[in-house]
Amino acid sequence: MTDPVRFTAIGLIGKYGDPGMGEALHSLSAFLRERDLRVIIDEGTAETLGKTTLGKTTLGKTTLGKPGLGEAGMETGLEAGMGPGIEIGSRTDIGRHCDLAVVVGGDGTLLNAARSLVEYDVPLVGINLGHLGFLTDISPDAMLECMEEILGGHYLTEERILLHAGILREGEVISECDAFNDVVVHKWNVARMIRLETYIDGTFVSRLRADGLIVSTPTGSTAYALSAGGPIVHPQLKALVLVPVCPHTMSNRPLVVEEDKHIEIVVCDRHDNAQVTCDGQITFGLMAGDRIQVRKKDRPVRLLHPAQHNHYELLRAKLHWAENPLKT
Amino acid sequence: MTDPVRFTAIGLIGKYGDPGMGEALHSLSAFLRERDLRVIIDEGTAETLGKTTLGKTTLGKTTLGKPGLGEAGMETGLEAGMGPGIEIGSRTDIGRHCDLAVVVGGDGTLLNAARSLVEYDVPLVGINLGHLGFLTDISPDAMLECMEEILGGHYLTEERILLHAGILREGEVISECDAFNDVVVHKWNVARMIRLETYIDGTFVSRLRADGLIVSTPTGSTAYALSAGGPIVHPQLKALVLVPVCPHTMSNRPLVVEEDKHIEIVVCDRHDNAQVTCDGQITFGLMAGDRIQVRKKDRPVRLLHPAQHNHYELLRAKLHWAENPLKT
Amino acid sequence: MTDPVRFTAIGLIGKYGDPGMGEALHSLSAFLRERDLRVIIDEGTAETLGKTTLGKTTLGKTTLGKPGLGEAGMETGLEAGMGPGIEIGSRTDIGRHCDLAVVVGGDGTLLNAARSLVEYDVPLVGINLGHLGFLTDISPDAMLECMEEILGGHYLTEERILLHAGILREGEVISECDAFNDVVVHKWNVARMIRLETYIDGTFVSRLRADGLIVSTPTGSTAYALSAGGPIVHPQLKALVLVPVCPHTMSNRPLVVEEDKHIEIVVCDRHDNAQVTCDGQITFGLMAGDRIQVRKKDRPVRLLHPAQHNHYELLRAKLHWAENPLKT
Amino acid sequence: MTDPVRFTAIGLIGKYGDPGMGEALHSLSAFLRERDLRVIIDEGTAETLGKTTLGKTTLGKTTLGKPGLGEAGMETGLEAGMGPGIEIGSRTDIGRHCDLAVVVGGDGTLLNAARSLVEYDVPLVGINLGHLGFLTDISPDAMLECMEEILGGHYLTEERILLHAGILREGEVISECDAFNDVVVHKWNVARMIRLETYIDGTFVSRLRADGLIVSTPTGSTAYALSAGGPIVHPQLKALVLVPVCPHTMSNRPLVVEEDKHIEIVVCDRHDNAQVTCDGQITFGLMAGDRIQVRKKDRPVRLLHPAQHNHYELLRAKLHWAENPLKT
Repeated sequence: MTDPVRFTAIGLIGKYGDPGMGEALHSLSAFLRERDLRVIIDEGTAETLGKTTLGKTTLGKTTLGKPGLGEAGMETGLEAGMGPGIEIGSRTDIGRHCDLAVVVGGDGTLLNAARSLVEYDVPLVGINLGHLGFLTDISPDAMLECMEEILGGHYLTEERILLHAGILREGEVISECDAFNDVVVHKWNVARMIRLETYIDGTFVSRLRADGLIVSTPTGSTAYALSAGGPIVHPQLKALVLVPVCPHTMSNRPLVVEEDKHIEIVVCDRHDNAQVTCDGQITFGLMAGDRIQVRKKDRPVRLLHPAQHNHYELLRAKLHWAENPLKT
Repeated sequence: MTDPVRFTAIGLIGKYGDPGMGEALHSLSAFLRERDLRVIIDEGTAETLGKTTLGKTTLGKTTLGKPGLGEAGMETGLEAGMGPGIEIGSRTDIGRHCDLAVVVGGDGTLLNAARSLVEYDVPLVGINLGHLGFLTDISPDAMLECMEEILGGHYLTEERILLHAGILREGEVISECDAFNDVVVHKWNVARMIRLETYIDGTFVSRLRADGLIVSTPTGSTAYALSAGGPIVHPQLKALVLVPVCPHTMSNRPLVVEEDKHIEIVVCDRHDNAQVTCDGQITFGLMAGDRIQVRKKDRPVRLLHPAQHNHYELLRAKLHWAENPLKT
Repeated sequence: MTDPVRFTAIGLIGKYGDPGMGEALHSLSAFLRERDLRVIIDEGTAETLGKTTLGKTTLGKTTLGKPGLGEAGMETGLEAGMGPGIEIGSRTDIGRHCDLAVVVGGDGTLLNAARSLVEYDVPLVGINLGHLGFLTDISPDAMLECMEEILGGHYLTEERILLHAGILREGEVISECDAFNDVVVHKWNVARMIRLETYIDGTFVSRLRADGLIVSTPTGSTAYALSAGGPIVHPQLKALVLVPVCPHTMSNRPLVVEEDKHIEIVVCDRHDNAQVTCDGQITFGLMAGDRIQVRKKDRPVRLLHPAQHNHYELLRAKLHWAENPLKT
Repeated sequence: MTDPVRFTAIGLIGKYGDPGMGEALHSLSAFLRERDLRVIIDEGTAETLGKTTLGKTTLGKTTLGKPGLGEAGMETGLEAGMGPGIEIGSRTDIGRHCDLAVVVGGDGTLLNAARSLVEYDVPLVGINLGHLGFLTDISPDAMLECMEEILGGHYLTEERILLHAGILREGEVISECDAFNDVVVHKWNVARMIRLETYIDGTFVSRLRADGLIVSTPTGSTAYALSAGGPIVHPQLKALVLVPVCPHTMSNRPLVVEEDKHIEIVVCDRHDNAQVTCDGQITFGLMAGDRIQVRKKDRPVRLLHPAQHNHYELLRAKLHWAENPLKT
């Protein structure tokens, strides 16, 4: 399970709009620069920190106010208060130049980073801000120790699938989005159940009256799908889950299928009351007859974990299961 | 998906103790003998029919009262009222000599047949007695037509996994059983929750206070596991489902894992109040400290279906989902 | 349980915008007029029928095109194609002048009629259009026979509570609505869980992260609340049900309390992503800090049923439970 | 809500077979004797403590080895190591002579005490042994302070119903039991669903294939019924809950009815595979045709709580709901 690649350029991505990540990012970048690694900080993150530091000077003496331009058109963080040799770049810059991205924030931050970096095959490490996440499972306290391990080649690599959704209206793709957790078709502006039809690999599965329908990856099975009554799917299982949300027919239960199935959801509602949402973040309004086609993205995302990572421990901690075996 | 093997010897297995299968079996055996196929009728089935026909003469002029011995030590059905050339044999006989087994009864009959024939790699066809089953999905009315198709090589082959459970007490295997649907560890003589621990591939997963824990195949996911709140797992997905039954901790939810995981359930209860059951039929009492090890059986069972078989249609019919798409 | 009042003036209310009710309404009004009862048809219903009859002449020779004015300023249905002596009136007219209202449509039609007539204490009879409802439980076929019974004084009277919801913003009531099924606070324009707090009779109950929270009457317990996982509450039980919709914390379960409790839901979401809906029909956008106060309405609604009415039979029919006892 | 009766004789009942209650009981009895109150210790409790103290001398100098006889034929605890003036008595003694019973243990201990004292109308106070219970909601730390309050007349009185179950075989009552939480009819020695029919006040409700059926009081709604998917019912609501356990038909959902309904459950199973259990403790084997009649017991049990008792706080603590409101 270990896959000892040595890393040379590290991207740093923090939680959008949350200056609370400043301290962790500052320690991380100092730690990485001490090891002479190239560090590129996400431009949105830099901006969030800059705004704050101007007011609150959390990052020390200099500020992000007057950034210069580094290699590849990237700003240098030198003037941005992150210390010498630290560059500021877009997600594309991080994708192209980094061989590792460290995400500091909640699971939402990592979902976002995964979607933006999946094309570049940059592995991700997730660090939380004090509140354990399913994806951001490293605590700030253990952060430097874990990074030391990972940089030393002691880590586990895990591949996770993403979903790609395309919306067809009268035969034409009118919108597309990626999702790491889930693609959800759900009711919207009227508090009334919507009618959907589901097809798997072109075969009719069911007609549904419900608040919505979730198509979830194994990763997403512990997110919204779990609240809607779906099962917990092990991240290694090559599967998708379809979870109806508050279905009118009580036997409309969660369905687990092979990950390479093509899911198609047809909106049968006359009321234009449906929308589709990817990872709870990107939303698109739907009309009667629209077809939402969901399939596994060709490329997976790679997550790196410290060698002692244990998925079941994470489940126990997050779901408040009994912590210890009674007997060993 | 079609796999056109021509069949030469057909085993016939009927529902245990239910003479209602007589008419279907009689038609089937006549149909098969007309095509000069060797027919071996399960000895338990023959006995059930014999008892009845003696009293009710459903099977016509002769009876099963004085059976003779056919090839391989098997009785001939000639004297058993099933017509010329029909032999009576054990499951082992059917396993050794047949290249197809036709099961007439409910899903329980097919579960039983699958467990007894899995070692011989004989494919199975399931015919119900008027009440659609998930496994016995061919109705008596369509039976001869479907058999015609299947004998003509027009069929779908589907592989389904079975489970093997071993019970360890103080390090020794004290009992073993196979299951096609599920292995269930559950409370027994006292109406009190039991305590269990689960390990997957040797890693501790969770401690559970519940009525029981179901380890289910995809096949079993529409049986007891569904009543206990588990998801519907597509038969092709290479997965096992662990479903807690009435867990005390509400976040102890169904868990779907890869089919080749080794599941171990440890009984932590002081009260000797647990037992293990395979397919709801074979039961074994458990003591504190017993370890139930469940894994996929090496050999799958093959189910044959008529070419137009549609698993989702079966789900809709059995689960009373809305039948038709609103729009095509 | 029978309460033999003789009725003299009957209001007729049909499904909004659905001309399919025309035949049933025509039979009903003829039937009532033959018995010399005063008949007032709901003006919305008359309009729906008028529009149709103009085009399709379902209602016979005359039309609703040029209505005259009857007693109390109401139009007469004479010129409206409903036959002599039939008046057209508003809900207020029906409330003031009728001692019985017959509703023809789905449960939604009856919910609407109940909300508009509750102040006038007019009892309601529900007739469906072919699809059995929980409230509109009389089929069109049995309609005249049932009306005969009811007019003859052979009926059951059942009282059902309604809810009143008031929305407070900065201490002022900014909106109010009534509900017969449920008051629902739910997420709206962003596909993200909302945060709510619940108080019962001023005591803090719980903080919730969910898609929403349903406050349901016993009547509503078989509607949306059932899809969200709530229990079935017998209509006679003096209770309210609080059902969280897809709660993030799995132990946030439905809660059943006494019907005279005051429920207060506080919106804690910064995102202005919540709205409140009464009976799935009337909707109001909410802001952070808004307080939704729900309590039982002072006046109940009375439903009349034929003497042989059986609530459990209705449950069995609507929920597809096994129909017959195995033994009597 | 406060009902300031002054108490003169206090019964003490401890957890059966658990010497861990010794310290709490010792403090309690000393505390009560200091106030010159008559103290009667439950004989089973005294025996449990005696056995221990003989070995471990937790209770001080004297032992329970040679008890004398006090008033009404009761042993005196003087020689039983509980100090002067402490008597040992049966539940009947406690019922007849005490005007308050203090229960030290888990909820099971209180369920048992309630069943044995309900006929005597002795109010109960529940003290846990460190692990908060729904019924034993006073912690050992707060015990003396709470007792001070209660003895001073500062308390809340709450009435809770019990159930009475009678089992009829061929028209004769062959067994009876009381339950504070629930009466459960469930499968037993074979791992196979049982078939039951339910009648309410003589009217057929439903036929059920399930692991079992729970009839629960509001008190029991947070016990086994909750694990089986039932709602949380407020203790003040005059209701019973019927919760099917793992029903084969998914629309067989929990049903909440008025507390004075007569519930009858008929066993339709040929396999003699059902048993009935009251509060998970008293069990009786059932045969096909047996009728289990469950109704509210005539007399309620009274629970006393400290004046600041808050049921929702208890729910939050026990069910791990978010503890604090976000805003006041």
